[in-house]
Amino acid sequence: MSENREEIQEQIKVQGDLVRKLKAAKESKEKIDEEVAKLLALKAKLNENEPAAPLKFTLKTPKGTRDYAPEQMTLRQSVLNTIVSVFKKHGADTIDTPVFELKEVLTGKYGEDSKLIYDLKDQGGEILSMRYDLTVPLARYLAMNKVSNIKRYHIAKVYRRDNPAMTKGRYREFYQCDFDIAGTYDPMLPDAECVKVVSEILSSLDIGAFVIKLNHRKLLDGMFEACGVPAEKFRTICSAVDKLDKSPWEDVKKEMIDEKGLDDATANKIGEYVRLNGGEELVDKLLTDEKLKKVKSAVAGLEDMKLLLKYCKIFNVMHQVRFDLSLARGLDYYTGVIYEAVLLNQEKKRKKDEETEIGSVAGGGRYDNLVGMFDSKGKQVPCVGVSIGVERVFAIIEAKNAANKTKIRTSEIQIFVASAHKGLHEKRLEILSKLWDGGIKAEHSYKSNPKLLAQLQYCEEQQIPFALVLGDSELERGVIKLRDVVTRKEEEIPLDNLVEAIKWRLSNKGYN
Amino acid sequence: MSENREEIQEQIKVQGDLVRKLKAAKESKEKIDEEVAKLLALKAKLNENEPAAPLKFTLKTPKGTRDYAPEQMTLRQSVLNTIVSVFKKHGADTIDTPVFELKEVLTGKYGEDSKLIYDLKDQGGEILSMRYDLTVPLARYLAMNKVSNIKRYHIAKVYRRDNPAMTKGRYREFYQCDFDIAGTYDPMLPDAECVKVVSEILSSLDIGAFVIKLNHRKLLDGMFEACGVPAEKFRTICSAVDKLDKSPWEDVKKEMIDEKGLDDATANKIGEYVRLNGGEELVDKLLTDEKLKKVKSAVAGLEDMKLLLKYCKIFNVMHQVRFDLSLARGLDYYTGVIYEAVLLNQEKKRKKDEETEIGSVAGGGRYDNLVGMFDSKGKQVPCVGVSIGVERVFAIIEAKNAANKTKIRTSEIQIFVASAHKGLHEKRLEILSKLWDGGIKAEHSYKSNPKLLAQLQYCEEQQIPFALVLGDSELERGVIKLRDVVTRKEEEIPLDNLVEAIKWRLSNKGYN
Repeated sequence: MSENREEIQEQIKVQGDLVRKLKAAKESKEKIDEEVAKLLALKAKLNENEPAAPLKFTLKTPKGTRDYAPEQMTLRQSVLNTIVSVFKKHGADTIDTPVFELKEVLTGKYGEDSKLIYDLKDQGGEILSMRYDLTVPLARYLAMNKVSNIKRYHIAKVYRRDNPAMTKGRYREFYQCDFDIAGTYDPMLPDAECVKVVSEILSSLDIGAFVIKLNHRKLLDGMFEACGVPAEKFRTICSAVDKLDKSPWEDVKKEMIDEKGLDDATANKIGEYVRLNGGEELVDKLLTDEKLKKVKSAVAGLEDMKLLLKYCKIFNVMHQVRFDLSLARGLDYYTGVIYEAVLLNQEKKRKKDEETEIGSVAGGGRYDNLVGMFDSKGKQVPCVGVSIGVERVFAIIEAKNAANKTKIRTSEIQIFVASAHKGLHEKRLEILSKLWDGGIKAEHSYKSNPKLLAQLQYCEEQQIPFALVLGDSELERGVIKLRDVVTRKEEEIPLDNLVEAIKWRLSNKGYN
Repeated sequence: MSENREEIQEQIKVQGDLVRKLKAAKESKEKIDEEVAKLLALKAKLNENEPAAPLKFTLKTPKGTRDYAPEQMTLRQSVLNTIVSVFKKHGADTIDTPVFELKEVLTGKYGEDSKLIYDLKDQGGEILSMRYDLTVPLARYLAMNKVSNIKRYHIAKVYRRDNPAMTKGRYREFYQCDFDIAGTYDPMLPDAECVKVVSEILSSLDIGAFVIKLNHRKLLDGMFEACGVPAEKFRTICSAVDKLDKSPWEDVKKEMIDEKGLDDATANKIGEYVRLNGGEELVDKLLTDEKLKKVKSAVAGLEDMKLLLKYCKIFNVMHQVRFDLSLARGLDYYTGVIYEAVLLNQEKKRKKDEETEIGSVAGGGRYDNLVGMFDSKGKQVPCVGVSIGVERVFAIIEAKNAANKTKIRTSEIQIFVASAHKGLHEKRLEILSKLWDGGIKAEHSYKSNPKLLAQLQYCEEQQIPFALVLGDSELERGVIKLRDVVTRKEEEIPLDNLVEAIKWRLSNKGYN
């Protein structure tokens, strides 16, 4: 706008007076209208210049969502870099899919949890829903593009209209971080590599001791059959077993009898099995179990487990692995091995619900029938994968940093270009331009004449390793003062060798 | 499931026969019911085992969206890495915000384009909309968290229910890549740095020659005033000027007269100004222009431009910069400098609509009043920023790669562990485990006994530099054959020094 508010208001006053005078003098309508138009134009101009009206609603992010501030993003990116480097070590590609899918793609994939799917408003056109996980979009991608084998990771946000518990790290918008191997391969080779990947990731994240629980859907089904559970109740009894990590056996048994109609004897038989956990010796014991050895699927599951544990031994991860018959996993679509990694220090406090809630940091399994649901001829692509619970990892590391009062550096600036006195901002720009063109991470104050003390304090707060302090007396001699921010030692650097001299000092300090 | 389909079908047949026999024999209802229950259980079991029913809908991504395959993701990540490294060189932090906002946050920010906003279905609770850009969420973030200064970049997807033109790289879900400097600073210092950032990014992306057009909203408004445009028409005439990059002056003039009610003389005066472009000499000429020098906002805009061009000169970017009075930018919220970077090779073909459409690769400007719209007391945080048109950059580089038949490597695997003959898969796992634990990127075939030729062909296709070829005769001697995939030269490496020997060879080849 050309004038400021006061000027326009003055003009409105003058023009208003003029209009009133004309009206009082009963001038021609044409003349009055002309001046009224000018008055209105001035008022319109004022409106455009007007500061925004006070806000009419509470400023917040949607329920269950949050912003990530620079400190959180820096932590998040460092965690994700660690994870991605493991995925890449295993040769994984990455793909990306839209944040929403045709609603039909998600329909019938999540059982009861379908009610948690976010739908988009029907604004004409297709009916869309926000993705609920990254697994169903992967299956859709494989079927749609006729991809019969891929090893891929995918890190992206997913959406669930769940009851948020943000203090526990449970959000409605949250990151998933998935690694999957799709393709028709020999038994347990991809499955064992997933265990190795989880082991490498959790070991490198420095979040404490963990155990990777293993079980097998075929073994669970076979065990249910051996205990006398009718086939049509396998999935619902499996869901009940899945609650054993949060509820005591007595509660789960009650659910099996009261809600799911098992008799006491059958439930008790299940109870004996799900209490078991161990290693290879448990597999061998169960292979000779009178009830189980008669059930084909139990034997098939146990044989898979035997092979898986053998490979885990070769991969040197047996000390982090536990065959656990109580592990069931909620999702319907698993068909083989299932995994869940739990932090051990939390697990000790099992009695407290909050503690067990944030205990699980990875989970997954084999799902051989999901891709076929999207193929017009039902062609299957067997898949196995794991999902790293990155939100929980973020929460754990954030809590640790807060406890240790660790201050995170969000920027990577290597050198701050400061003025020792007034009138140097153009010289600063000249120096900065040289540094940037030389690949050095540099910044300065956006004030023309900042105070030297304020500039040096900023360097210390921001943990910037070096400051260049420009001053006329040095510039006249063709040099600039370079200050080590931590030691506060200063030296003079020749202007014509600036970039090289700074790069050399940075690399000596381990910056690149 | 414990049995395969054929077995269950056989059991159903047997059980069905039994039921029919019992019924024929008029056995007791109790007995018949018991056997019928068994039959139903078997049928339920079969259903669970059933391959998915053929798909009832066309498998696709939502209109205007797409998947990114591994090749596209690799390219995308390399482009984004280049851009982010420039942002970091300038000390930018990054933040993230939810993909949707309260609808009220977006209301009244996009003028006519509001109709392009995706709304979420009202499923009870808050009314939400998908973000339309990253600027309004930034302003909301700053106001909500009382942040009065930040230099941040944000790379994320935004959503517009626009008419997609996917061959031209126009999608409904697409990446934005924004760099903004918020804070109360001295004139043109942050504004000039944005020009420098765009220059560094476009130079490093290797997408050809470009020009960064510069103009100023205050100058545009002052020019309109000097030409006799009524104040209430400034924004709508500005929108008309914005079309000059796609339409000839005659069409724009017609719109100004026929649709927007300017008279011919006023339009002609505007026409004379918007044809002007140049450098500092043009600023000086306009500062002495009889009509402009009387209008305060025109003079203020020109003085900003003079300072900006001076800083651009210091930053060594004048050869890439053009002061262009026809640049207007569509968005209402700009209040100062505006930018737009255009690829030059495309610009030469101005007559063809398709060519000019993908010409613009960055844009932005100063918006000093947006944050105040979210502050309950109207407190302003002045902001200036640029958005890199990464989708266009992806499209340009993809087209270039396709023309050059460049094959993109999507994985970073350094070594493939192969079997020369049968029975070696456990030994492969043992070697792989050592390599992974040593930080080497390695993979193998998920077949127990793959053919050697197939394994070596895979290495060549995937451009994997080395293959370890395991064979019993070498293993007995405590060595493994290491094959250079390109030269096909082989050497023997001692097993007990494997990781170090391979790392040394990788670093000699420039891998890390």
